Amino acid sequence: MNKKKKLDINDKITSQHITWHYGKVDEDAIHKRNGHLGVVIWLTGLSAAGKSTIAVELEYRLFNLGCQTALLDGDNLRHGLSSDLGFSEEDRRENIRRIGEISKLFCRAGIIVIASFISPYRNDRDRVRSILERNDFVEVFVDCPLDVCMERDPKGLYKKAQAGEIKNFTGIDAPYEKPLQPEIVIKSDLVTPSQSVDAILKFIKENNILLSGSPGMSLGGPRI
Amino acid sequence: MNKKKKLDINDKITSQHITWHYGKVDEDAIHKRNGHLGVVIWLTGLSAAGKSTIAVELEYRLFNLGCQTALLDGDNLRHGLSSDLGFSEEDRRENIRRIGEISKLFCRAGIIVIASFISPYRNDRDRVRSILERNDFVEVFVDCPLDVCMERDPKGLYKKAQAGEIKNFTGIDAPYEKPLQPEIVIKSDLVTPSQSVDAILKFIKENNILLSGSPGMSLGGPRI
Repeated sequence: MNKKKKLDINDKITSQHITWHYGKVDEDAIHKRNGHLGVVIWLTGLSAAGKSTIAVELEYRLFNLGCQTALLDGDNLRHGLSSDLGFSEEDRRENIRRIGEISKLFCRAGIIVIASFISPYRNDRDRVRSILERNDFVEVFVDCPLDVCMERDPKGLYKKAQAGEIKNFTGIDAPYEKPLQPEIVIKSDLVTPSQSVDAILKFIKENNILLSGSPGMSLGGPRI
Repeated sequence: MNKKKKLDINDKITSQHITWHYGKVDEDAIHKRNGHLGVVIWLTGLSAAGKSTIAVELEYRLFNLGCQTALLDGDNLRHGLSSDLGFSEEDRRENIRRIGEISKLFCRAGIIVIASFISPYRNDRDRVRSILERNDFVEVFVDCPLDVCMERDPKGLYKKAQAGEIKNFTGIDAPYEKPLQPEIVIKSDLVTPSQSVDAILKFIKENNILLSGSPGMSLGGPRI
């Protein structure tokens, strides 16, 4: 993983890319104390692909490894920060932009963010990646065939979309753009949520997001 | 402090006030692990009143007590999440609304948020208070006379505002509405930043935001 820039208390970088008023708490010190880096695990995929189930289980497993986590979920954010937004392409774009900015704040605070959003547009996801430091964005494509998602349809949303009761529904009358180079692909019609979490934890361990000597590693490592 | 509601993994409350998809990680468990509750320390006051200086020092002291912290600052947020907003009353309102929602997310993740914003409108601050659980919003009025702020003017902003180069500047051609019942008042023209932080830490300790047995408490308590 990359080393973050260290700045003095009153430093302010005003380049085109970074403008930040740093505190006195060093990010490396936070990482060392927490035993892990701050990163964003970004789950993208169709509605009913299994993102939320995987996200909830991943948070639980990470918490039990002693990690600091935050679970950001479409349903939650839509009722708070993005309550002023709809589902047009423009509003979806703004929604993902905001979530990206929040994820960055959590990441800077040394938290492992688990973000679970359909986030259907490639450009929007890439923009989130671009505002984070290199390696801080872990794109997880929860890849489930549309027909399987439509059969699952736990909230009856696909039926409503097909009946025209919901407009701009991803997979029905709005596009889903698959990630081209995601860090992780999960074929969620073929593996269990637990196996999916195993795969993500394996990535986390192999990429030294958990630091050696951290609770998760010293207790025989993550259960992966 | 209040006990937070405990919900099962798939519970969803859809009252007018709360709609949240809970994870499997219990907030009490997070608090116990971290040794403190999640709260929002909200610093409000005029530009140059000393908010940022106090915020940075408070975060440093809390970090050294072993606390999980996040520093949210006007300058930072304006370049990220709220980069689409200006300084009209409407935009300021939306800015504070968003920051309130972010603060809530951090609070839920068990973090002590230190939010440092002019936040001149009483209604906006009260709205942030209203979306948080009772006792989770600690309003700190950094009370410094306008003439002192204008004399300090470290960024030359008051001069620019007086020259008409900046519009809607709080204290010059935009109002500042003082808190009516803040949890803490700091007369920042009369006390040092360090003394200000002492006062906030005293409040944190007295209100059991640091849990007994936490690193901060067991090491002889916070340095207050």
